[in-house]
Amino acid sequence: MILERLGPVRRCAMFAYNRGGGMRKYDTVITEEPLEIRVVHHRGGRWVPTPIAVTMRTPGHDFELAAGFLFSEGVIRGRDDIQRLEYSRSERPPKKFNQVELWLKPHAELDTQRLSRHVYTTASCGVCGQASLEWVEKICPGRPVGDFRVKPGLLFRILKKLGGAQPLFRSTGGLHATAVFDARGRLRVLREDIGRHNAMDKVVGWALLERALPLSGHIGLCSGRLSFEMVQKAAMAGLPFMAAVGAPSSLALELARAYGMTLVGFLRHRRFNVYTGNERVVLEP
Amino acid sequence: MILERLGPVRRCAMFAYNRGGGMRKYDTVITEEPLEIRVVHHRGGRWVPTPIAVTMRTPGHDFELAAGFLFSEGVIRGRDDIQRLEYSRSERPPKKFNQVELWLKPHAELDTQRLSRHVYTTASCGVCGQASLEWVEKICPGRPVGDFRVKPGLLFRILKKLGGAQPLFRSTGGLHATAVFDARGRLRVLREDIGRHNAMDKVVGWALLERALPLSGHIGLCSGRLSFEMVQKAAMAGLPFMAAVGAPSSLALELARAYGMTLVGFLRHRRFNVYTGNERVVLEP
Repeated sequence: MILERLGPVRRCAMFAYNRGGGMRKYDTVITEEPLEIRVVHHRGGRWVPTPIAVTMRTPGHDFELAAGFLFSEGVIRGRDDIQRLEYSRSERPPKKFNQVELWLKPHAELDTQRLSRHVYTTASCGVCGQASLEWVEKICPGRPVGDFRVKPGLLFRILKKLGGAQPLFRSTGGLHATAVFDARGRLRVLREDIGRHNAMDKVVGWALLERALPLSGHIGLCSGRLSFEMVQKAAMAGLPFMAAVGAPSSLALELARAYGMTLVGFLRHRRFNVYTGNERVVLEP
Repeated sequence: MILERLGPVRRCAMFAYNRGGGMRKYDTVITEEPLEIRVVHHRGGRWVPTPIAVTMRTPGHDFELAAGFLFSEGVIRGRDDIQRLEYSRSERPPKKFNQVELWLKPHAELDTQRLSRHVYTTASCGVCGQASLEWVEKICPGRPVGDFRVKPGLLFRILKKLGGAQPLFRSTGGLHATAVFDARGRLRVLREDIGRHNAMDKVVGWALLERALPLSGHIGLCSGRLSFEMVQKAAMAGLPFMAAVGAPSSLALELARAYGMTLVGFLRHRRFNVYTGNERVVLEP
């Protein structure tokens, strides 16, 4: 189902300066291209395309990205809403591959009211962190489930696996990864993207298309920081445990606490901080 | 003019694990709260508020953020369009401080057609990198000007200043900085935010409100990576030189090349890469 028609990296010439000298070299940079996500739905006897969003992304796993974005924003409610995913029929390459259409099944409704948290929170009760939490409450299918326990050693092992499984980062130094592991530390999926949220959406979209949602009993790990949106997407996917190399934000903490999710930040070689859901981390005897 | 009513950091309890042991500690996390940016303009004899965007940001320099965002997205054309900036009158604290209104002067028009690059590129010629470049072409006030030359030592000095002038990063490890230096390496402005683009918008907004645009002959420096949007905002502000600790993207390179902007990536203690605009970097004899 997944076709990759635009390369994830590009070659370019540059000048590398190093300790007093320098030379012309070739370098690999990460590709950044816009992706338009459209929903095509059945209304009044015909199929109507509606552009939903444009995101600057690294090409690859575009169908997962579209599906994951639409699910984690609350626009579609599950795998059964989807008839098919395809690149635009009306454009020619390469533009064709910057436009993904998700065709809804005839029974599924497109509820654009649910589309934007931002519009929603503004309309309802003013813009604030609390309103953002309440928005997630409305669209989220349920609380994450996972009564497993994790030892610190497992967190260090999955961090090592994340580093080992990031081929694009190694060649470019320019992008984020999100991965999902089971409670024994086995890698289920890893996606990279120039945008942190896109990498997360690709993972959620993978789970959605594989009918692996909710990701109960699993651990999410991301290479960057944990913002509100990252934790929101994790909550939508039913992940009970999120770990990150970077720092969490205030609103990410609040959302994780409200959902009973374990949040680990600053995961490094031999240390980490547990911000919420302590009970899922046990010290080794 | 700048009021900071919501704190940029918050305290929280957490459990710190380190090499086999651990303890309960207090930590400082960066505040993340939504900011709604509204434009109030005069139409048909009365003042009409239009919500433009909501961004998840770190409170502080909110008026700069609103002004910089609206300018770099092409919604306002300069300082003279602005009558005043204020927090919402219709909301009470703390929500009040999550809503900034920019009041246009009566002569200034709100052109929502210019608002979204995404809508624009879609409507005109399909979604692609080339269309994104053409969008900047349409809204950008002019090419950056700056025929100065920079020695590697100056880049290493401004990198050190950036690190030294990041108080929030030191206490939280959780946010991005963007700074502007003059061609001699003197710091003009530095802003921090949980969002990379917000930090850049705050810098652009500062320059706009201080009537310091265009930033000809100046150097921008950011703590993260250089995406298309970062370079677009730099182009709007007239910055001829952008340096970053992180990697540039393919589309950032293309835009910088089209604008004759110097782009430096992977700026570290004793090395860096020059991707475009080599002529502004001279090796020391």
